[in-house]
Amino acid sequence: MADARPRRLAALSDAVTAAQLDALLVTGLANIRYLTGFSGSSALVVVTPRDTLLITDFRYQTQVVDEVGALARVVIEPVSLWSGLWEHLGAMGGVKVVGFESPHIVHRDFQRLLEAGSRWQWRATSDLVERLRERKDEGEVACIQRAVDVAGRALARTLPAVRAGMTELAVAGLLEHALRDEGSEGFAFPSIVAAGARSALPHAQPTGHRVAVGDFLLFDFGASVDGYVSDVTRTVVVGRASAEQREVYEVVREANRLASAAVHAGMTGRDADAVARSYIERHGLGELFGHSLGHGIGLEVHEAPRLARTAEQVLPQGAVVTIEPGVYRPGWGGVRIEDDVWLGAHGPRVLTDIPRELVELV
Amino acid sequence: MADARPRRLAALSDAVTAAQLDALLVTGLANIRYLTGFSGSSALVVVTPRDTLLITDFRYQTQVVDEVGALARVVIEPVSLWSGLWEHLGAMGGVKVVGFESPHIVHRDFQRLLEAGSRWQWRATSDLVERLRERKDEGEVACIQRAVDVAGRALARTLPAVRAGMTELAVAGLLEHALRDEGSEGFAFPSIVAAGARSALPHAQPTGHRVAVGDFLLFDFGASVDGYVSDVTRTVVVGRASAEQREVYEVVREANRLASAAVHAGMTGRDADAVARSYIERHGLGELFGHSLGHGIGLEVHEAPRLARTAEQVLPQGAVVTIEPGVYRPGWGGVRIEDDVWLGAHGPRVLTDIPRELVELV
Repeated sequence: MADARPRRLAALSDAVTAAQLDALLVTGLANIRYLTGFSGSSALVVVTPRDTLLITDFRYQTQVVDEVGALARVVIEPVSLWSGLWEHLGAMGGVKVVGFESPHIVHRDFQRLLEAGSRWQWRATSDLVERLRERKDEGEVACIQRAVDVAGRALARTLPAVRAGMTELAVAGLLEHALRDEGSEGFAFPSIVAAGARSALPHAQPTGHRVAVGDFLLFDFGASVDGYVSDVTRTVVVGRASAEQREVYEVVREANRLASAAVHAGMTGRDADAVARSYIERHGLGELFGHSLGHGIGLEVHEAPRLARTAEQVLPQGAVVTIEPGVYRPGWGGVRIEDDVWLGAHGPRVLTDIPRELVELV
Repeated sequence: MADARPRRLAALSDAVTAAQLDALLVTGLANIRYLTGFSGSSALVVVTPRDTLLITDFRYQTQVVDEVGALARVVIEPVSLWSGLWEHLGAMGGVKVVGFESPHIVHRDFQRLLEAGSRWQWRATSDLVERLRERKDEGEVACIQRAVDVAGRALARTLPAVRAGMTELAVAGLLEHALRDEGSEGFAFPSIVAAGARSALPHAQPTGHRVAVGDFLLFDFGASVDGYVSDVTRTVVVGRASAEQREVYEVVREANRLASAAVHAGMTGRDADAVARSYIERHGLGELFGHSLGHGIGLEVHEAPRLARTAEQVLPQGAVVTIEPGVYRPGWGGVRIEDDVWLGAHGPRVLTDIPRELVELV
């Protein structure tokens, strides 16, 4: 696979020039990783049409060389990344007007720009790098596919080991152990394992609550491979499903299927959301689907585009998005079925290969 | 245990008044949890001497009632937390000058204050809540102790299962599974499991690299209990330790022991750091101890105070800090031994009860 980073830096450089900037200060860590490959937790990057500068600290001395190579000028700053920035920005010829990433710099650091950085003119920017990240290239889709596959294999190893009487925490332990054994370099986000009525809480963290026969058991989790994440949800029944559980489950499953088949580049996020929502509404469950249909994934688990009632933006070709309809009945339980879908030139491709039929753990 | 939150809100209210503010907008999520108990990922809080307001979204409708109760006025905002803020701040009598948390608000949201929030005068503040959080009360120390104990039991379960030939990822899987089984509600931070030469990288994430006989194997990880975290490190040898491994290990162990015994409220973070550093320097290894001695822990894994060469601040009574000297020889390996220590009124109490003698996995 050709190194995608020079192309990304060139595209960003074009965007910087189009925004009438001499340079962009990149502070968002996922943006830094996308542009340079650096995966550490502390860095500042400056991109100009001629040059890329990366400043980090001594903890990453070995790692930054391995990851960035000759792509950028790397500076190891002993005291403060910011003092390194003033020094090296000053040495860059012809840089006067500098953009900064408004969503990725806290006010305290913004004040540094105005004070210690008062030699430069600072311009707030939004999403210059994110707009590039929306459209995944082949290599990125391959990484996400691997992260999706790791998640699928981990769930397949976990389900046969689940028993009534286990705590949600113990089930999470099984799942996360399997994720590691399957090669996940980390967790895309804190795993959700929610049993019984707790499956109706869209953001339930696992607790000491015990799984009981007759419960819905909801897993929402992800793997991480070469920095790219997956985000999948499956809901199973412990023991035999009741008629009501089956009924709700099948509505969610069909909503998932319809949306996964219909979503494509060029439609708005709102229209994608409506495919699943209108089906659920026609079955009288619309008020129990309280969140939006999905979101982009990539280096982060929530990135552009959004698939939601308020998302007017057109879905770009190359995006990878989640399709995750759900129905939640407070005090009773909830069902969510979430897949990851790539919006290719010739239509959607569902990356998730985990059965969607209702699983009864008996 | 008495509910500590009213006392915290009263103390913050005093600090707000002392700073000549009518109110403080709290955006840091750990600060919000400390003040109100709310553990969700999306909230704005306003504290005035008379009133506490918490705005969140519908995903947390059930959770926020359970966690916050009658402590604050809770608003569920359907569209945007910010439009809720303008509405409810406007209804609060006598609020003109409002502080915001400069380290916890991104520039994009700061712009909202100046634009949509232009009716109010905004003042940057730093650390008003963090200064309260530094001094842990009995209930907080008890939570951290439980998180420390969970970490210790998880490591004790993991070590006997480690075998040469396992990948770092597989070992991380064992450790994290044990953390969950012991009751950890999450991971305090991404676990570090680093074998052989990789143990010399202070921030190594686990990889497919295989553990070999003769390797140092470094574990740096934490548990989380009721929101409070632990942060511990142990380094073992797979097989029999060489004389050189043992020599480096014993220097780090003695540095850890000296610093844990000497650290106390009222000394500066620099003096605490110097206890371990001067011992390591006397053994000719000072240049291989490239990071600082430690940091506070609590609701976050890195919080005030710092124990470092540049930390002039006096360590406050009640803080819980890490003591984590290390020696890292590039290409060969590294040793770090990290404990959590409470700075009580009558001296330090080491919370970590995990053996520090060199463990050989044979």
